[in-house]
Amino acid sequence: MFDKIAEVSLLYDFYGELLTHRQRDAMQLYHEENLSLSEIAQEFSISRQGVHDALKNAEKALYEYEQKLGLVSKFAKTRDAVLQIDSKLDRLIKENHEDKDLINKLEDIKGIIDELDE
Amino acid sequence: MFDKIAEVSLLYDFYGELLTHRQRDAMQLYHEENLSLSEIAQEFSISRQGVHDALKNAEKALYEYEQKLGLVSKFAKTRDAVLQIDSKLDRLIKENHEDKDLINKLEDIKGIIDELDE
Repeated sequence: MFDKIAEVSLLYDFYGELLTHRQRDAMQLYHEENLSLSEIAQEFSISRQGVHDALKNAEKALYEYEQKLGLVSKFAKTRDAVLQIDSKLDRLIKENHEDKDLINKLEDIKGIIDELDE
Repeated sequence: MFDKIAEVSLLYDFYGELLTHRQRDAMQLYHEENLSLSEIAQEFSISRQGVHDALKNAEKALYEYEQKLGLVSKFAKTRDAVLQIDSKLDRLIKENHEDKDLINKLEDIKGIIDELDE
């Protein structure tokens, strides 16, 4: 469903606050600011291996949280459903482009979905 | 939005797996099986005060998880949006009860929502 890096980033968005400060810092520099292991090692004044271990432990913890709580998968299920609804509404709007009243009402429903992304 | 007991139950559904075994057992007997503090105390062979403290600590931990992660509130937002969409689709179906083709397509969209509850 996701590649590994996207998956870890998503898990981090959900459970990142449960990691230690050091793990969070390493994850942020690696996944968000795209620093290399060596650059992060310099930043923290620890070995490259130390950074590698912190990242591996953080990833392991994130996967364990998801295994226990399953909230990313729960959320993805709802999110997929909403995207399906949105695309079916688009099709209905195209098919009924002459019925202004209906289109307004379908656009109104799409508005609820748009607000979710804000 | 929720009364306190419903709120704690919802938090427990999301984060219960992060509690200790003892906290989980106490929460289950109290919130799901509706035993009294004294009955749970007997079950665990501890004092009524001990049960009270285990429940209070569990609740405190659940609220702290939500404060850190906010996943119950994130999920409730999406859920509310889906319920709104569902009720607007119902209204459209009523208003267009003579247009069989449109109704089928609206029912199809409602089907996606129904599947979420399974």
